[in-house]
Amino acid sequence: MILKPEDIEKESFRIIEGLLAKEGLNFPEEVLPLVKRVIHTTGDVSIATDLVFHPQALSEGIKALKKGASIFCDVKMVASGINHKGLARLGGKVYCFIDDEEVQAKAQKTGLTRAICAVEKALANNEIDIFAIGNAPTALLALLKAVEEGAPPPRLIIGVPVGFVGAAEYKALLVKKSPAPYISLLGTRGGSTIAVALVNALIKLALEDENSQAC
Amino acid sequence: MILKPEDIEKESFRIIEGLLAKEGLNFPEEVLPLVKRVIHTTGDVSIATDLVFHPQALSEGIKALKKGASIFCDVKMVASGINHKGLARLGGKVYCFIDDEEVQAKAQKTGLTRAICAVEKALANNEIDIFAIGNAPTALLALLKAVEEGAPPPRLIIGVPVGFVGAAEYKALLVKKSPAPYISLLGTRGGSTIAVALVNALIKLALEDENSQAC
Repeated sequence: MILKPEDIEKESFRIIEGLLAKEGLNFPEEVLPLVKRVIHTTGDVSIATDLVFHPQALSEGIKALKKGASIFCDVKMVASGINHKGLARLGGKVYCFIDDEEVQAKAQKTGLTRAICAVEKALANNEIDIFAIGNAPTALLALLKAVEEGAPPPRLIIGVPVGFVGAAEYKALLVKKSPAPYISLLGTRGGSTIAVALVNALIKLALEDENSQAC
Repeated sequence: MILKPEDIEKESFRIIEGLLAKEGLNFPEEVLPLVKRVIHTTGDVSIATDLVFHPQALSEGIKALKKGASIFCDVKMVASGINHKGLARLGGKVYCFIDDEEVQAKAQKTGLTRAICAVEKALANNEIDIFAIGNAPTALLALLKAVEEGAPPPRLIIGVPVGFVGAAEYKALLVKKSPAPYISLLGTRGGSTIAVALVNALIKLALEDENSQAC
């Protein structure tokens, strides 16, 4: 029985590496930490086959984080899971408008999802570097639509919303239109824990990068 | 394109019901709302095959919630995802000690996981009705060990921690020892979103039950 956190993590990643090899799943070296973190957070090695990375996703994400990134989270679970200490050390900040009064009022008035209204509020009032969308397919759709209509594209879109209505379609659209570097998970699977795993893996890489430069 | 939240939810559950029928997956009527909610939250119908329900899990969970349940959450993501408005209407409360200073100090001193120390704190100082463990396998192990050693069993254990080190083993132990009614997800898969889906589905059932009695 392994009960020490560092031993658990080490053994866990050893097993994940073995599973990736066993399944014959190959990824570019640079994205491997993110792939492993997503497998770690879902307990599901099969999820790796649906992960897609824009070629500039890692470099742009890390660059943005090192400059102190504004991260939009579609739901509170994503916001609460982010490594806030690490992000603060990089000078970054989290935004989540899903429970915002203005957003709630607009959603009620228009009949649209709160997720759509939250993205619209984020784009209207804030400069968002990274969109982390883990739950609501309509948040991703609203973002794609806004950029198409002239909103400035963010530095990185982590688009891994979940579900059977729209999620697979809007994620396919993200990959096809590629309005900004993206990380996505094709198909119906997704979720807040996956978005968090990706953001936190990037924060870890950005911190390591800073530390290595400081040495 | 479906953009109204109530339409999205309705269509989503229609699709999930179709998938369950197509896969030939049958569940007792009473647990179906929970099964569907877990599929909804993961976008993965295959997850249903690993779900296990103690025969008294639903009735005990709903009874506890209607009396105003204390719910322990192993991590902040679980705590933040719970339907707090619904739970408050039932008089319930959420506890999460993962960032508690005492817990952090103890974890540092002992070298054990914060999750273990958080469960120990919960059992020492509070009467917990429902344990919702979505992330940390060692939290489930600590709970099983404590009950074995004489701690009063809770009304319901939602034990769906995730990962490759301990998760499958401790969940198998939960089902085998059955120290209290439980809901679990066998194997390595699991996660905070699944724990939240199960808790929120139970809260919804408890509220519906109250409303139907009030009519």
